[in-house]
Amino acid sequence: MTKPFRIALAGLGTVGVGVVKILQEHHDLIAARAGRPIEIVAVNAKTKGRDRGVDLSSYEWVDDCQDMAGRNDIDAVVEMIGGSDGVAADLVRGALENSLHVVTANKALVAHHGYALAQVAEKNNVGLAYEAAVAGGVPIIKSLREGFSANEIKSVYGILNGTCNYILTEMRETGRDFDDVLKEAQEHGYAEADPTFDVEGIDAGHKLCLLSAIAFGVPPDFDSLSITGISHLTSTDIDFARELGYRIKLLGVAKQMGNGVMRSVEPCLVPKDSQLGVVEGVFNAVLVDGDYVDKGLAVGRGAGEGPTASAVVADIIDLARGTIVPTFGRPVSQLGVPSWADLGETVSRYYLRINVLDKPGVIAKISGILRGLDISIESFIQHGRDPDQPVCVVLTLHDVLCGAMEKAYKAIEELDIVLEKPCLMRIEAL
Amino acid sequence: MTKPFRIALAGLGTVGVGVVKILQEHHDLIAARAGRPIEIVAVNAKTKGRDRGVDLSSYEWVDDCQDMAGRNDIDAVVEMIGGSDGVAADLVRGALENSLHVVTANKALVAHHGYALAQVAEKNNVGLAYEAAVAGGVPIIKSLREGFSANEIKSVYGILNGTCNYILTEMRETGRDFDDVLKEAQEHGYAEADPTFDVEGIDAGHKLCLLSAIAFGVPPDFDSLSITGISHLTSTDIDFARELGYRIKLLGVAKQMGNGVMRSVEPCLVPKDSQLGVVEGVFNAVLVDGDYVDKGLAVGRGAGEGPTASAVVADIIDLARGTIVPTFGRPVSQLGVPSWADLGETVSRYYLRINVLDKPGVIAKISGILRGLDISIESFIQHGRDPDQPVCVVLTLHDVLCGAMEKAYKAIEELDIVLEKPCLMRIEAL
Repeated sequence: MTKPFRIALAGLGTVGVGVVKILQEHHDLIAARAGRPIEIVAVNAKTKGRDRGVDLSSYEWVDDCQDMAGRNDIDAVVEMIGGSDGVAADLVRGALENSLHVVTANKALVAHHGYALAQVAEKNNVGLAYEAAVAGGVPIIKSLREGFSANEIKSVYGILNGTCNYILTEMRETGRDFDDVLKEAQEHGYAEADPTFDVEGIDAGHKLCLLSAIAFGVPPDFDSLSITGISHLTSTDIDFARELGYRIKLLGVAKQMGNGVMRSVEPCLVPKDSQLGVVEGVFNAVLVDGDYVDKGLAVGRGAGEGPTASAVVADIIDLARGTIVPTFGRPVSQLGVPSWADLGETVSRYYLRINVLDKPGVIAKISGILRGLDISIESFIQHGRDPDQPVCVVLTLHDVLCGAMEKAYKAIEELDIVLEKPCLMRIEAL
Repeated sequence: MTKPFRIALAGLGTVGVGVVKILQEHHDLIAARAGRPIEIVAVNAKTKGRDRGVDLSSYEWVDDCQDMAGRNDIDAVVEMIGGSDGVAADLVRGALENSLHVVTANKALVAHHGYALAQVAEKNNVGLAYEAAVAGGVPIIKSLREGFSANEIKSVYGILNGTCNYILTEMRETGRDFDDVLKEAQEHGYAEADPTFDVEGIDAGHKLCLLSAIAFGVPPDFDSLSITGISHLTSTDIDFARELGYRIKLLGVAKQMGNGVMRSVEPCLVPKDSQLGVVEGVFNAVLVDGDYVDKGLAVGRGAGEGPTASAVVADIIDLARGTIVPTFGRPVSQLGVPSWADLGETVSRYYLRINVLDKPGVIAKISGILRGLDISIESFIQHGRDPDQPVCVVLTLHDVLCGAMEKAYKAIEELDIVLEKPCLMRIEAL
């Protein structure tokens, strides 16, 4: 087993460079662990000449990364380009078709095309490894696919996007509003110039698709996922959540309900002292509940050069050791048909904030709508204001059919005393 | 890959029975994940007839488990007997010598004989899997050996014994003393009739040996480990720790220091809101710091039928999938020579409680000893009592050479005003 494991690396952004750094700095340590040296044969990026802070002079420079897929002098292609389609997808597909292992951090690619790619990988007996795609510093793909493999998974809850968690933490700690904190996050490099994928929950959605595919043995199925981001949240909601003993987290949730697996990415209220409630700033965390293992929590850095590159290199070491695990935790032929729950028929507790004019009869109107739909109020907050002034009414609601809650929401939204779009969020007790 | 993976199971205590339950209840789910069915061929225990709550009628009963080792109709032996020597050790060695995979939860066996057993396993290209030996519900062996394999490990901190963590949590929450809580834990089945292995830190010591072997690429080396248990702790110390903003945890620590790797199992003060400080009751947790991945935390149930059996079955599934990872994370030939730090030359912060007679000059004597050894006081608590009565003096000390602290401890212990053995604990900031 002393034959080197040879890789070609496409993409030299932050993570790609991080992979080069680790493989250079820890060359001997990794060779000892893998039982063989890991050698970079060729690299590629859009721009050749730029100084990336690492010495690339001993690697062959490849102008067109697609040429890597056809090589027969390498064992694996490491795809660090990104994007669900185009160059990255072509490279990964081509490499797998040529019986090369693939390691990627590309959550969008695997969420959209993972099923088809898994078929190619399996047919050619190579691995498609993507630990870095979900919560870089947390080996959660491995834990779910291997560590908890003896369990029927009851639920997976994840704080899967560090940018959102950083923004929500800052909003709570400083009392500032979303736009203000986002701008600062962009200045610090914690958020992209175009933050849509992060703040609208799409990135977390990709990740949840991968986790739920493994947990429930089905293809990723991104298109059917319900996603709500955090850009509509206000410091008012953050403050009321705190008053009620909760924190707001953008949660990816996949859990067995009576009528299938309920999946969503949305901001939820979680108890402030709970295992996910205390996860702050750029950290990611995943809480898995299995029928035998019970609840297991993993917390770590979700992004950044070091943690993500660490996950990529761990995948490379696995492949160099000869470990190939089915892409979604079971052979493609064993993947089932998703049985996603109709969200309207699932049950949840809720937080509802309504901005109203403080007139007589306001509470009667709102509570009348709720009573008519059999929705039971758990708690009620309204801080005193002058009559005829705008005021926030905040309710928490006992377990209710989500479909009924949606109806109540629409009816309340249409009341003439309601001044703006109310804010409705699920409460997850965890 | 549809050929069944066949196992013989020796030992039908709590965990052994749990393994049977999972393999029966999740037979199809596990076959889908493993890509092949997993079949129990033979079982063994000391007593045959007893009702164990599972149907064993379709398995061959083997009177002498050693006969399992010689079989050629099985792929793996699952050793659920326990004990570092004797029957379990003979069975595991025999099975590996006969080129059978071995899955075990036996931390004592692997801590004492893991190096020799790893040699046999490797020579015969079979796996020696022991995920269940450390923190059953937490896939920490896998995370450390595979998930964090790209990193030079800087430190591993673990709450590795659920019995001790339960006792310490109960002592803090109820104000009761060690003996009282231990008795209750025994009545609830959280502690063994002979609790020595747990409360004296030996069990945690076995586990720390395994974690540090993987983290630092050396044989387990149990004999050189420094171990202190929790049986000497009093509710007084628990209360003072609380007053200082800490909780007392039995910590397994293995961390790179200037002069090697410092390893110890001992009760330490950790900040009450820290990632390990909030881990309470029977839960286990491990915090790993790697140079690229940064800090990663995993929390879950440490023991009990479900979590431990879940880990055993996960190992079986790995082997059925064809995954064999070197026992201590690298081939035996690549394991290094341990470079354990001389504890006296490491540096730590400390908590020191001294029961003294409240006479003039007491503080001067104590602080004189400390000053003479260049030990700097960080904080000082003495609650008022009547003169000439016994009183507790509690100090916290800035970073100090542990050897100097030991000298100070001895000198203080010998003062005539000191009424009983002082209590000295390290403070881990985490």
